[in-house]
Amino acid sequence: SDEENRDQSASANPLFGFKTTTVLRDSAREKNMFIHGKLNDQEAVIILEKTPIREDTLLEIFNGSRLKLDMRNDIYSTYQLQPPAHLNEIKTTVVCPATEKHVKKYLRQETYLVQESGEDYRSITLPYIQSQSFSVQWVYNILEKKAEAERIVYEDPDQDVGFVLLPDFKWDQKQLDDLHLIAIVHRRDIKSLRDLTALHLPLLTNIRKKGEESILKRYGVAVSKLRVYLHYQPSYYHFHIHFTALSYEAPGCGVEHAHLLSDVIQNLQADSQYYHSRSLSFPLRADQGLLSKFKDAGKL
Amino acid sequence: SDEENRDQSASANPLFGFKTTTVLRDSAREKNMFIHGKLNDQEAVIILEKTPIREDTLLEIFNGSRLKLDMRNDIYSTYQLQPPAHLNEIKTTVVCPATEKHVKKYLRQETYLVQESGEDYRSITLPYIQSQSFSVQWVYNILEKKAEAERIVYEDPDQDVGFVLLPDFKWDQKQLDDLHLIAIVHRRDIKSLRDLTALHLPLLTNIRKKGEESILKRYGVAVSKLRVYLHYQPSYYHFHIHFTALSYEAPGCGVEHAHLLSDVIQNLQADSQYYHSRSLSFPLRADQGLLSKFKDAGKL
Repeated sequence: SDEENRDQSASANPLFGFKTTTVLRDSAREKNMFIHGKLNDQEAVIILEKTPIREDTLLEIFNGSRLKLDMRNDIYSTYQLQPPAHLNEIKTTVVCPATEKHVKKYLRQETYLVQESGEDYRSITLPYIQSQSFSVQWVYNILEKKAEAERIVYEDPDQDVGFVLLPDFKWDQKQLDDLHLIAIVHRRDIKSLRDLTALHLPLLTNIRKKGEESILKRYGVAVSKLRVYLHYQPSYYHFHIHFTALSYEAPGCGVEHAHLLSDVIQNLQADSQYYHSRSLSFPLRADQGLLSKFKDAGKL
Repeated sequence: SDEENRDQSASANPLFGFKTTTVLRDSAREKNMFIHGKLNDQEAVIILEKTPIREDTLLEIFNGSRLKLDMRNDIYSTYQLQPPAHLNEIKTTVVCPATEKHVKKYLRQETYLVQESGEDYRSITLPYIQSQSFSVQWVYNILEKKAEAERIVYEDPDQDVGFVLLPDFKWDQKQLDDLHLIAIVHRRDIKSLRDLTALHLPLLTNIRKKGEESILKRYGVAVSKLRVYLHYQPSYYHFHIHFTALSYEAPGCGVEHAHLLSDVIQNLQADSQYYHSRSLSFPLRADQGLLSKFKDAGKL
């Protein structure tokens, strides 16, 4: 119909005319796809991910779908079910204009486990981070309420121990199963786990206490149903902490990449220099510049 | 329209009128849901799982979908995208009539994160383990070559620092993607991580060194492609260590359940009593007896 045609024009559909260059990565398990292409002559990366099935839509799905029988055997049968379109969305993230770095970030690559001693951090990793000057402008936009202000779930404005709590990009907030929030600290002088000492214990315990309280209050999810952790290496070097539903096997919550906040707090209580001196293991993809630095140093 | 009404009647839609009793299990990550209910007065289990995104449908998805803007920040924006229904199906499996066994098979138990102090271990967990007298006869059968002898990949027969290395049950050994081996120690006096002290460092470093060497020799998989860890709580209380392919997100390798062997070794080097005194977090399912012990003690 005419109405439909208008809806699908460029003004109503900003992805109309997107030209795929290559599929960077996809997961049949997670039902997502990372695509590099051109949008209005600009480089762009589009991430598609199907949304989780919601219990509150089941009645409509069962009564309002079209079904096609695939197979029937004894008490088992399988179908292709086409639900009403509004119940079956694809969460879509657009990065535009995208740089070479974005494209590389999403391209599937071989992964290696690196062992980084405290000395390796100071001689290899830190100089690399400093040389790259990764932009965290989008983080500052959030902290300064220039963006995403309406998404903030909780804020402690204190400049020493304060933080902003908001839903992670990847969570569409429609179900609690994959609950994922991020606490971003106000102070700008902590790059990662490596910078933490016992002096940061008030910050860490404040985030744990108030983050957990806010999530209980807002979402009704108790501490015993939460995984609270941080990544090393993090994906950006402004200190932040993840809160995810325990039942959700969030990507990046594997033991080789994640550190439970409760362990971090105990380790710093016992030894202020714990993260200054320990060897830490973490995965690096083949295309990450840091990996070649470790290779060059004969550490892999 | 009339045509649509006919399509959605019982004859065209065999799930029309399905009444949900309960959601047995669902995964936000995998976009599936297992539902118990009634179909035409018979017990039934329905499994819904969204289909992977297909590259050959991208053009139609980008040009033929409706989009609703969620958020815009700097170069990032997110949308809810409604693709044409025929490109966005849900694979549906119906078990009907279903028995009680089917229902139990698919029922997910609630999982809780428990914080166990050293004292909790000694007053709650240890008495529980001892009261259960879990049989590890199958482990002794392996160590004594009464079973699975032909599956052994490597053995160090030393009774103090020795171990047997063999493929995990769940690995079919047909591809290296999901490589999974277990090192089972010969000594029978270590129940879990909690029993380890600095005295066990020769055992731990021996397993690490010889386990990694054997896997490189037998499978050609290098140390930098391996995740070497142990579980707390373990699934059986005879000390063992897991070796899995780094690229394989093995169940149970989440930060809340797994401990990297390299971290364990460093922690014991710094503090022989580390695992005697620390609070450790781990997940417990609602049907695990240990959970009710923690509840009874007011620890959850």
